[in-house]
Amino acid sequence: MMKVALSVLLLLVTLSSTLGKYIPKSGKRIPQTLSRGWGDQLIWAQTYEEGLYWSRSKTKPLMVIFHLEDCPHSKALKKIFSEDNEIQKMLDEDFIVLNLVYETTDKHLSPDGQYVPRIIFVDPSMTVRADIIGPYSNRMYAYEPADIKILLDNMKKAKKLLRSEL
Amino acid sequence: MMKVALSVLLLLVTLSSTLGKYIPKSGKRIPQTLSRGWGDQLIWAQTYEEGLYWSRSKTKPLMVIFHLEDCPHSKALKKIFSEDNEIQKMLDEDFIVLNLVYETTDKHLSPDGQYVPRIIFVDPSMTVRADIIGPYSNRMYAYEPADIKILLDNMKKAKKLLRSEL
Repeated sequence: MMKVALSVLLLLVTLSSTLGKYIPKSGKRIPQTLSRGWGDQLIWAQTYEEGLYWSRSKTKPLMVIFHLEDCPHSKALKKIFSEDNEIQKMLDEDFIVLNLVYETTDKHLSPDGQYVPRIIFVDPSMTVRADIIGPYSNRMYAYEPADIKILLDNMKKAKKLLRSEL
Repeated sequence: MMKVALSVLLLLVTLSSTLGKYIPKSGKRIPQTLSRGWGDQLIWAQTYEEGLYWSRSKTKPLMVIFHLEDCPHSKALKKIFSEDNEIQKMLDEDFIVLNLVYETTDKHLSPDGQYVPRIIFVDPSMTVRADIIGPYSNRMYAYEPADIKILLDNMKKAKKLLRSEL
């Protein structure tokens, strides 16, 4: 009797372990990454608060990328951006990075409106670098794939930190 | 002469394409996931604002998990949590999920202090369900791995939405 109970127990244990992990009805999903394709090798902050914290404590400028996964302009920029080793290396070594698909409540991050793609730099002194702009006067923080060199120059500007008032 | 130039060009193109993607000096990293191990098959909100937005627009309660990647209590709960198919299925179908390793500025999310692991439910009416608590009176929103059934019961409570005042 004991033996039967043990066998049943074993069977149950085996069954439950072979049933495996939860899979949605719609089929297995690819886990979302924090990079969302903007650089899988970079260490991404998850939220703006986290980005600001790391920027201050590591004294590195923060780059905030606003984008949408189904926006063709965002996608085109992302491709060039993620494949540009100079940009990726500089970001990895000298910047804190954050990409957002949802706007924050902080209006300083949309100096001339909310649009995507939009790249905003924030100094470790927690000052939004509204002075670091791309080539378009109507959307000052937008970049096209062809503007990647301008973006690189802007990153170099952002690396020259503002004088902290602390 | 033309031929040589072409060959050199071809060589350069080949070289640059074989150089491949940026890899940090410290070695290749595993891309961070938004799930951070709490359920790779779930669709995670990245920020609290995003979570609130989805909760309201889909009329589903939001579960916010505060944790730390190197906290043994968080890790132990995460293991049980991510392997519990009943929890994963209910979360996938009836909840909006968010996990955070960094506190937000919203004090409603820490009714009795900031500690990890801590699980807070938010109603689609944007009311933090401070009434849905775990078994510990000193840390009311904490759960141990052995409390997974209590957590499941609390999820069922959270599914009974508050009457919206709208």
